[in-house]
This record gives sequence, structure tokens and C-alpha cells, in this order.
Amino acid sequence: MIIVMRRNATEEEIQHMIAEVENAGLKPTTLRGTERTVIAAIGDERKAGDLRKLESAPGVDNVMPVLAPYKLASIESHPERSVITAGSFTIGGKHIGMMAGPCSVESEEQIVATAKAVKAAGATALRGGAFKPRTSPYSFQGLKEEGLKMLAAAREETGLAVVTEVVASEDVDLVSEYAEVLQIGARNMQNYRLLEACGRSHRAVLLKRGPSATVDELLLAAEYILDGGNPNVMLCERGIRTFEAHTRFTLPLATVAWLQARTHLPVVIDPSHGTGHTTLVPSMAKAAIAAGADGIIVEVHPDPEHAKSDGFQTLDCEAFAQMMADCRRVAEAVDRTM
Amino acid sequence: MIIVMRRNATEEEIQHMIAEVENAGLKPTTLRGTERTVIAAIGDERKAGDLRKLESAPGVDNVMPVLAPYKLASIESHPERSVITAGSFTIGGKHIGMMAGPCSVESEEQIVATAKAVKAAGATALRGGAFKPRTSPYSFQGLKEEGLKMLAAAREETGLAVVTEVVASEDVDLVSEYAEVLQIGARNMQNYRLLEACGRSHRAVLLKRGPSATVDELLLAAEYILDGGNPNVMLCERGIRTFEAHTRFTLPLATVAWLQARTHLPVVIDPSHGTGHTTLVPSMAKAAIAAGADGIIVEVHPDPEHAKSDGFQTLDCEAFAQMMADCRRVAEAVDRTM
Amino acid sequence: MIIVMRRNATEEEIQHMIAEVENAGLKPTTLRGTERTVIAAIGDERKAGDLRKLESAPGVDNVMPVLAPYKLASIESHPERSVITAGSFTIGGKHIGMMAGPCSVESEEQIVATAKAVKAAGATALRGGAFKPRTSPYSFQGLKEEGLKMLAAAREETGLAVVTEVVASEDVDLVSEYAEVLQIGARNMQNYRLLEACGRSHRAVLLKRGPSATVDELLLAAEYILDGGNPNVMLCERGIRTFEAHTRFTLPLATVAWLQARTHLPVVIDPSHGTGHTTLVPSMAKAAIAAGADGIIVEVHPDPEHAKSDGFQTLDCEAFAQMMADCRRVAEAVDRTM
Amino acid sequence: MIIVMRRNATEEEIQHMIAEVENAGLKPTTLRGTERTVIAAIGDERKAGDLRKLESAPGVDNVMPVLAPYKLASIESHPERSVITAGSFTIGGKHIGMMAGPCSVESEEQIVATAKAVKAAGATALRGGAFKPRTSPYSFQGLKEEGLKMLAAAREETGLAVVTEVVASEDVDLVSEYAEVLQIGARNMQNYRLLEACGRSHRAVLLKRGPSATVDELLLAAEYILDGGNPNVMLCERGIRTFEAHTRFTLPLATVAWLQARTHLPVVIDPSHGTGHTTLVPSMAKAAIAAGADGIIVEVHPDPEHAKSDGFQTLDCEAFAQMMADCRRVAEAVDRTM
Repeated sequence: MIIVMRRNATEEEIQHMIAEVENAGLKPTTLRGTERTVIAAIGDERKAGDLRKLESAPGVDNVMPVLAPYKLASIESHPERSVITAGSFTIGGKHIGMMAGPCSVESEEQIVATAKAVKAAGATALRGGAFKPRTSPYSFQGLKEEGLKMLAAAREETGLAVVTEVVASEDVDLVSEYAEVLQIGARNMQNYRLLEACGRSHRAVLLKRGPSATVDELLLAAEYILDGGNPNVMLCERGIRTFEAHTRFTLPLATVAWLQARTHLPVVIDPSHGTGHTTLVPSMAKAAIAAGADGIIVEVHPDPEHAKSDGFQTLDCEAFAQMMADCRRVAEAVDRTM
Repeated sequence: MIIVMRRNATEEEIQHMIAEVENAGLKPTTLRGTERTVIAAIGDERKAGDLRKLESAPGVDNVMPVLAPYKLASIESHPERSVITAGSFTIGGKHIGMMAGPCSVESEEQIVATAKAVKAAGATALRGGAFKPRTSPYSFQGLKEEGLKMLAAAREETGLAVVTEVVASEDVDLVSEYAEVLQIGARNMQNYRLLEACGRSHRAVLLKRGPSATVDELLLAAEYILDGGNPNVMLCERGIRTFEAHTRFTLPLATVAWLQARTHLPVVIDPSHGTGHTTLVPSMAKAAIAAGADGIIVEVHPDPEHAKSDGFQTLDCEAFAQMMADCRRVAEAVDRTM
Repeated sequence: MIIVMRRNATEEEIQHMIAEVENAGLKPTTLRGTERTVIAAIGDERKAGDLRKLESAPGVDNVMPVLAPYKLASIESHPERSVITAGSFTIGGKHIGMMAGPCSVESEEQIVATAKAVKAAGATALRGGAFKPRTSPYSFQGLKEEGLKMLAAAREETGLAVVTEVVASEDVDLVSEYAEVLQIGARNMQNYRLLEACGRSHRAVLLKRGPSATVDELLLAAEYILDGGNPNVMLCERGIRTFEAHTRFTLPLATVAWLQARTHLPVVIDPSHGTGHTTLVPSMAKAAIAAGADGIIVEVHPDPEHAKSDGFQTLDCEAFAQMMADCRRVAEAVDRTM
Repeated sequence: MIIVMRRNATEEEIQHMIAEVENAGLKPTTLRGTERTVIAAIGDERKAGDLRKLESAPGVDNVMPVLAPYKLASIESHPERSVITAGSFTIGGKHIGMMAGPCSVESEEQIVATAKAVKAAGATALRGGAFKPRTSPYSFQGLKEEGLKMLAAAREETGLAVVTEVVASEDVDLVSEYAEVLQIGARNMQNYRLLEACGRSHRAVLLKRGPSATVDELLLAAEYILDGGNPNVMLCERGIRTFEAHTRFTLPLATVAWLQARTHLPVVIDPSHGTGHTTLVPSMAKAAIAAGADGIIVEVHPDPEHAKSDGFQTLDCEAFAQMMADCRRVAEAVDRTM
């Protein structure tokens, strides 16, 4: 941790900060520059608690952390990149995991038909929402356990692993009965009670980045799950909120290489939410693979125009098959397989 | 709802959309311009489900809603601005409600001392966190029920109403035993299970805006609580995430007048999270009052430098007393009282 | 400057960086932590050039500057806050400067009528655009020199100082003949040729923040003008671009106190561009004054609905007079005068 | 244009708006819904001036444009996608144009060496800055005409077309003598005097998106050049400003497909500025090609660690050669050539 004192900080203020650094169990080194004094605090600043509070001490200008705040998620603690397997689905290493399916499970007929289509096109997991967090209380809220059963039926038919969202800690056991992968949605990325419950689960977890979360916050959310004892966490970039209004969110693909240099966890891209427009999805799926993503999750529905949710960003089965064919070529060009 | 067709949309595509609008229970009017055809759909578009899915239909360029998506929160449904009372605390109308206290409850001594100090300075409610949602699993997580008891003790001593955060639906009953106001934190603004549980509660709710939530999303989150039967909701602007790095969040005070023109619910400003720096809090508290805010919530601690959380944005008791004196003058200048 | 090495940086890489720091004329101190090595570079890092390039050296994780990059604009170089006078207009110290007038000068009749109205309401400078930078080539581009003459006529009639935009270095002399204050618009904040020309001018300059400029970039733009020899620079916050779509820009009033702690230059707020809606302007003007702004610039037109530009965010003369009366009360409450 | 009236708008206010629409030369259609009245204005709203000013009229809630504000840049006006040739450089159609070179021209030796290296790796144009817009007045400002001569020498040696920035209208003729492509930097995207001068030039123009410009604003900036008579405009996405702090800017690759559906102009991606970190550049260059970009512009220097500017985001010659080999494979996978 680096503490930058104000230009006019008094000797007393400097000595006070040196004492505070020692109190926090760190070793201070004082650097007296021509304009300002800087105090470097050496040691494990994560154990020392949140030292940014020292910014409210007299004479302090700002406090800059040096170490990343996460530990178990870091590549330094686990230098091999993780490979995760959940039923038919594998992600990490050479293999790119492809998850596809509707935003919402609407009927057994719909989900089975979609499962067959996405499997035929090469997907290795089926996504579909049974518990739906919806912005408006007046929107379709999902079929809940009934929907989970339909997902299980689709797995019976196709052998595809099931990825589905869990929205509350009290539902984790129920959803774990039906799904190979628990999805934590963007709105719940910092629902710590839910993260803790998923940390106690034996199911793999797909953790979506919140639209205003920093990458450090995403990694700290993963840290809650890892720290709870569950090592099978995938990180999903699904777009951030910016001033761009022509896309629903802004999909920052540079996150892929940045994360892969800092964490061993697989990185998944969601081009459906990341763009919010059917017509932009295939282009961004290909780009994600070229950028090095370990997996893709994409919304597919037999009839997007009549989907109960997210139709505007959903591919129909034919468009998905074309996208998969195109993605496979890009994957080969970057020495990956799908 | 307005549906803008692409320039080269075919007559068949236009007729298809007209039929879709009718299917959705709305009345279509077709406007053929020199360059494009526009279909206006008249009726209650909220009942018609999310028609943005029509964007995936052939020939459609974009779909623009006309009506606000919330109803109970709107000023049109409740033309008088709401006044909410919870114990010693009143907000709305002429009166500006002032909530103050530490980020975290740390000990009975700390919370009682703070309560006395903020009451002496003129606050009418005591804030303090017992259940703490924290970005890192390694940070102090709050004293939980023990902390709630300390808050109750502080109320005993001072008579101040208690405002405290609830982080999960299963805790709502417990927290309601101890607090007059349930705070829903920014990270939980779209935790719908929690919103629904607060909708069933008889306690007033302080709903904080998520840092990437739009104002419509904030009002729809309030709508969940109102629709659940609880009319006592306060909206709190606590800053949004932007590229500004010199403040922790960006505090958009124009939200105050915008909300007050569209909703009857009281609007509260949080200058502590909204700036993230102790030195910027008083200036923004005054600005919030001048902008017309109905309430202020601010972090105060007897010793911010050693606070267990948020010390960098916390006022000490003396600075808070000064801020209150300054705010009172501004309140008078805009014909409000504190 | 602080250089954080990667965890696995080799001794050779560390020694290389130490040598680079010495080459840059700074004094290195090496701090070997439990996890990482940090090299602190002591000395005037501004003279050493942009050392962030060292991030591309092997073994380096990141490079963090310690000193602010601006010098002449800093309060450390000029501990008294500046007061600027330009004709009838004074800004800084106790006095809040009020600039008002139409977005565009449209006719002598329009500008003279506006000047009389805003003077009567208490404004001390007249704003009005003659050279108009417009997003679309098909929009009204301003009356140019003709417009400058109309502004001069309005000054003749009222005695008000004239504030008007200059869009190119080659126009600085011409505009200086007619105006007391040269406005540099947000789009030109980093038009360095223009900044340099204004640095050679004897006219005061109102420098608007670009909508994606950081506050450091704003201060460095001011530094170009100060470094050119012109000390009379006002900084204007007019809103930044964020995901908020219900306002044209997001007006971050915390900038006021932040800037006033770091620069001696007066800080002006523009609530017209900062909100983009007539109805939100008065609320934000009052908030700006309560936040401590040294001046306000606001768009006023006798008939906003028929204005040639910016009508949607323009007050009519009556609304402006009311706003001035309300602002005056707030100014008194914060011990300022208008 | 669609005008949404407030719920409580009076008949008089509605009639007033109908008259205003007629005055603007458009044909009004009045749609009376259950909650609100909507007035649709049919006709070429671009000719009608900025009708958003009608938002300041009584009874109006908001005004929504229907037509895109640009014309010459639109694919509707030019249904074939443009191919641009400038010396050795071609962009558009099957061919992906690759521009590479240092941020700043520093010496003839440096620029010639770089030119040879990037040509050997397959680049078809040489970039290099002679006039450098720099955030700080204390940074290296470029070699100016001397630098242009060095670029010309590098072209002599290699045959590569030269791409270099022009920062002011008065320099357009001079720069046009030495360069095949005039670059307009992000800071100057709305420097209309410069856009107009480039509109009169016979050289191709590479127009960079400003970091807070919307895509419509980018297209309107291009419209200034096209409207001036110069049809050879390339659009360059180089990242936008968002809350992401781990990259210098956020590179929204979805812009590629969005633009290609709306404009015939070639779309170039700049992964150097778009990420701000050497290590992230190759991943994003590959992603850009997979997304369908028509060209790439990338910073290359023989010794990035000692570059006079932008070293932290610059590739050395070897890394560039590797990136080119990797990009070529991705280009083939999307049926393009480099």
C-alpha cells in the first residue's frame, strides 16, 4: 500500500501515519520527495483490513493499494488455468464450451425442440431460465420448479448439461437437483448470501459480471464462492453499462485477455446480453472466440418474435446453426476446438 | 408504442407487424412517411408484455415505448407527493428528513455515542449497518443480530428511529423487529425476492439506486414493493458508476427534480457514497437540499480513521454538526425545514 | 512515481527498471515486499516525460504517478483563489458571476431584448454564440462576425460584458475585438492550437470541460493557456457523458469542491447543458451555488420554443428572473453574493 | 418525429403542437391513446431543423426523432459498401487494410526501420505522428514538418502509403503534400473547421471516434467531410470512455456490425488506444477481424520502452509480426484477406 501525503503535511501527521501503518501490521518505509512525502506499507495488505479509511486522517492525500484484493481466484495461487467439467459440458484448455438455449423455459415442447436444435448445431450445454429476475413486476416471472422439470426432460432427450439461473440462497438445493451448472445473474453478482450458498454447492457456477462491476469486484465475488469450498467457477462477461445507447450494454472483449492473465478461472462471453440485438450476436460471438474466450453463452429460441422474454436479442435455430459453423472456423484459426 | 420499420420493409412485413400489434391487444395506426413506415400501437402497452421482442421480426428497425413502465410509483396514479413517518422520523412535504450514523455498528458504546451526537446536531433518524454486504469476503461482515440489539439500545437512549440494511428476504422479519426503516442497498436494488419480502412488511423502506440502474429501473424496483402492498417507499440516489475516478461514484443531483416530476415517493440523497471522500460530503449535502431533496443520509462516526468500514467517506461528529448548521440555512433558503 | 513489478519478476528485470528510473533523472528506492517488489521513483516526474511507457518493459505490472501532472493551475503554485474581472463581470471570492443569454445570436432585436432581460434579473455578463459548432452540418451554424456585432450592440445598450465562443485559433483576434470573455466549448477542450492562441490573448477565457475529459485533463487544458501567458482562466463543468439517458449529460457537482481544493481558478457550472431540459435547470442552478460554484452560465431566450438551437434546455426571461431570485437566497445561505 | 404529450396536456396545448409541426413543414397525425396523446410528424425531419426544441413547449413530455440524422454517410444513400484506395493501401470489400507504425515520428532512422519491419510483416500503410496533440503542454509535441519529411523518406524506402494526423485546418495542405491518408484524431472529431478543410482535400481521411461521441455523432462528423465533397472517409473506433479502469478506453467491437448495417464507409479498429496495454493488443486485433472490421491501425515501435509517446500500448516489431501471422489466420476464417 502506498500512502501519498499532502504537500503541506506536517511532520506530526507523517509520524501519525507511520504509526497507523505499524498498527495495521505492515512495515512502513518513508520516502521524502521534493514535493511530497510518500509512505510505502510493506506486507499483506489484505490482512490489514481496508486501509483506504486512512484517507480520512489529517495530511493524507490518497491511499493506493498495491496487491490485488483477491487470492484464491488469482493465477498466482493456481498457475494452471482451470478446466471445468459438468455432465456433457467441458470448458477450459483447448476446448471452448458452447451454451445455448432460450432466455425463459416456456413449455416442454419449446425447451426440448430448442435442446435438439442447439445440440445438432454443436452446443454442449442447454441454457434456459426457470426462475426469472425481471425488471418489471408485471413481466413473466418464469415457470419456477415446473420449468426445472422441463429442463430435466430436455436433458433426458439430448444428454445436454443444463445451465439455469438461481436467484436466492434458499433455492440452491432445489436448482442443484435439476441443473449441472448454477447461473448467478448479473443483478445478483453481489448477492453475498447467494454466493455463499453456491460456495457450499457441489455444482459448477457460472458467475455473471454486474453491468457496473469492476473486474476486481467480479473476482472478489468469485472469491466468495471459492472461499466457500467450491472451486468450479466460470466468469461471464455480459456487457457493462456505458453511454452507448445503440447496444443494450457495451461488451468489452479486452476483459478476456486481462482476466486470463490474472485468474485461472475460465472466461465466458455472452454476446446476447452484451449487444441486445439479434443482428449483432454472431459478429460478437466470433470476436469473442478470436479474443480467446473459453466459452460462449447465447440465447436461442425456435420463434424469437414470440419469446416470453429477450426476443430482441435471441437467435432462431437456423441462425444459431450458421453462427456455430462460422465460430468453428474462427476457433480453428486460434487453435481451439468447439 | 411506436414501431419504426426499415426503409426497405416490404408490404408483407408491414402487414405482419400490424397483425402482431393487434394480437397484443393494441390498436395499430399506420403512418407512411416519405422514407419509412411507422406503426403506432395505441393502448396500455404495459399489459401487452415486452413488445421489444418485435425488434427481431423481419423489416423492423426499432421499437420505442411511449408510456412509463411503472404505474403505482407514478405521480399520475398519486398526484399528492407522499409523506412518510416512521417513529421519530418524517420525510416529505416541507420537512427534510436527516438520517445519520456509522456505516457499521461496531459496539454499543460506538453506536450510542454516535446516536447522541447526531441527535444533538438535529438528525431525526439513526443509520447503522448490522448486516453488511462487503465486496471482499475478507472484510468485516457486520455484527448481525448483535448489531441490531445495539441499534435498539441507541434508540432507547435517544428516541431516534433506526434505519438499517436488510440483505436477504429471510431476514426481513428479524430486522423489522428492531428497525423503523428497512434499507435496501444498491447491490440489492434488483434482488426481487428481497423486494417482494419488503413489500409484505409494515416497515418503511429506503430503496437505494444501483450504481448502473436507470431511473426507470429504480422506479420499477419500487413498484415491486408498492405492488406487494407497502406504500412507504423512499428512493435514494447514492451515485452512479461513470468514468470519473476522483470520486467513488458520480452523484447526479438532477435526478431529484426529474424524479419529483414523475413519482410521488420521497427522494433521498446519500452524499457519502455519492462522493466517497469525507471532504466532499458537506458541499454535496448542501447542494442536495438546494436541489430539492426530501432527505439526506450521511455516514458519521466518532473516529472515522478507525472505522471498520467506509472511514474514507465518513464525517466525525464535529464535522457533522457543522454540516447540519450549514444545511439548515440552505433549507430555509428553499423554504424547507430540517 | 511508483512502479509495481509482477510477482515473478526476475532480479534482472528489477535491476533494469532501477536503471531506467535513474536514466529518467529520478532517484529509485527499491521496496521488496512479501509478494512483490515496488520501485519508488523520487523527484519531479513531470520533467521525466511520460514514464507510463515503462509498463511495456519486461516484469512490470503497472506504473502509478504520484504528483499531479499540472503545475500553474495548481493551488500549490498559487495558494490564493483567483478573482477574475472582465468588464462588468467579476468572478471569484465572495462574488458569484452570473452569465446568461441565448445559445445562438439570431438577430439584434433578439440579443438586445435578452440582454436587457437578463441584466434586469441580475446577470453580470451576456452569453451568446456567433460561431456555432454544430453536431450536424445541416444545422444552423451561427451568424459569425455579424453575430459578434450584434453582441457588441447589446453591450452598448446594457453595459454587460460579452461571453462568446471561439472555435478556431485563426478567429481569436477577431472575437477578442468584440468579447470580454472567450469561451472554449466542450468539443474544443483539447484543441491545443486554439488553447495556445487563447494563451496569447489578453481576454479572459471560459474553458468548458469535455464530456469525457477527466478533471486532470481539464486542468492540463487550462495549463496550456496559463503556460501561454494568460492567467485569466475559468473552468466550466457542463456535464459528462454517462449511461443516464433522461438527462442530456450528467452534471457532477462534486467537481466543484474537488477542483477548489486543487486549483485556484474559478469554477463555473452550466446547468443548461448539464441537464438538457428546461425544467431541470433552476434546481441545478441552486444546487451549484449551494455546492460552492463561483459562477453560473445559463441559456435564456425570449421564446425558447422557436430558438434556433438548444430550445429544449433554455429558460424564457420570466423563468430566468424567478431562478435568479431563488439563487440569490441560496447564495446568501452560503455567505456569497450575486 | 414522434411528439409525446403529457398525460394532462390540454386541448389547446395539443392544437398548438399540431400547428408547430405544420409550421416546420411536416404533416401531423394525432393519435389519442387511453393515457396520452401522441403527435406523429411525417416528412423529412432533417430539413425541419432541430425539433427537440419543441420539448420546451407547454404540455410536451418528449420528442423522439424517427429518421437517422445523417444522409450521405448512410447505406441507404449508397447501398454498395465503399472501397478506398490511397497509394499502396486499399480498404473495403474482401481486403482488410493494415496500418502500423509508431505513435510519434522520432527520427528518420526510427521511422524507416519501423516501416521496413511493418512492411515485411504485411502492413500496407505506415502510421506515424508528426503533429502530436498531447494532453500535457509539457509532453513531446512532435517533429512537425520535419517529421512529415521523415515519413516521406520512409515511403521512398518501402513504398508504403503514409497515414498521419492533421490537427488544424491551416495544416491540411501541408500534410496533404506528404501523406496519402489524413488522420483526424479522437480529440478533433468535432473540430468542424478541420472537418470542413478535410472535406475540401483530395486525400483519404481516417476519422477517429471521440471517446464520448455517440455513433450518430461520428456519422455526422463524417457527414461534414462527405458534404464538403470528399467521399473517401474511413471511420475508426478506438474506444470509448467508461468506468472500466483496467483498460485505457473500452473498445466496443459491436460498433463494427452496427456501423456496417448503416453506413457504406469502411470501419477501422484501433486496438492500441482501445486497450492501452501492449499485452491486450493482439487479442483485440484478432477479435476486431473476426467481428468484421475492414481495417486495423496499430502502434509499433522498435523499442516501445523508450518511445517518446504511448510506449505502454505499443508492440515491438517482433510482436507485431506474430500478431500479423495470427490475424491472417483469423481473416481467412471469416473469408477476408490481408
